[in-house]
Amino acid sequence: MLSQTTEYALRAAVWLAQNHGTSQTTQQIASATKVPAGYLSKVLQGLGKAGLVRALRGKGGGFELGKPPASMTILEIVRVVDPIQRIHTCPLGLDSHSRHLCPLHHRIDQALASIEASFESTSLADLLAPQPRESLCKFGEESKSGVNH
Amino acid sequence: MLSQTTEYALRAAVWLAQNHGTSQTTQQIASATKVPAGYLSKVLQGLGKAGLVRALRGKGGGFELGKPPASMTILEIVRVVDPIQRIHTCPLGLDSHSRHLCPLHHRIDQALASIEASFESTSLADLLAPQPRESLCKFGEESKSGVNH
Repeated sequence: MLSQTTEYALRAAVWLAQNHGTSQTTQQIASATKVPAGYLSKVLQGLGKAGLVRALRGKGGGFELGKPPASMTILEIVRVVDPIQRIHTCPLGLDSHSRHLCPLHHRIDQALASIEASFESTSLADLLAPQPRESLCKFGEESKSGVNH
Repeated sequence: MLSQTTEYALRAAVWLAQNHGTSQTTQQIASATKVPAGYLSKVLQGLGKAGLVRALRGKGGGFELGKPPASMTILEIVRVVDPIQRIHTCPLGLDSHSRHLCPLHHRIDQALASIEASFESTSLADLLAPQPRESLCKFGEESKSGVNH
């Protein structure tokens, strides 16, 4: 139900949260999150425009989170990358019905609202396991070693 | 977040629930639900294969629900048309992680599970407004009149 782009953006954000305080190159993030580097680059660009990540130039450059992991929710990331399309007006296009959704669309919208609420109440810090290397699958640590070779 | 096909299938199902006990032609359903007839036909075929709707042949033929509206949940329809893709194994493809999702994927899967639960607890009968003509937007009644012209 979440798009591939959202999935990739969230992986990258968790990785940056896990490595908060250090800058991570696109290649490092790509390798740790198993996201193709070209695709990741566009995702990071989008997150950068919204201020959710910050690009650092020069030697030791790369990306870091735009704010502390405890202050960034999953919903903020989802909203930038591929927002959940809530149902605000009648999908059957009726003017007379626009402010009074029928029970079906009201129920669907309630489900979408509950996802938004769940994502809004979850910060990146909430997703960091007590042992950092387990926050984004053990692969994270393995790939970091790989990058350093 | 729900596909167009799911949206159309749910509209058709609500319309059939609202008219339970009578058979509805594809054209009648298409007109009431504002779904293109060709698209709707394929959707109904899929629902038919799963037994959720029944095709009636001959004069007065058309479609009817495969079981009473109170016995059919939204989730049954969603599962036939375009199932919610739960996360059962690590999306990063790690064998070692397959049975222990990282916090990110666990959280996303929880959100998906809550939608499934919400849809499972909602029957088509729950979506019928006290006044039947309001169950699927007032348009329903208008279009029924239109079809009879």
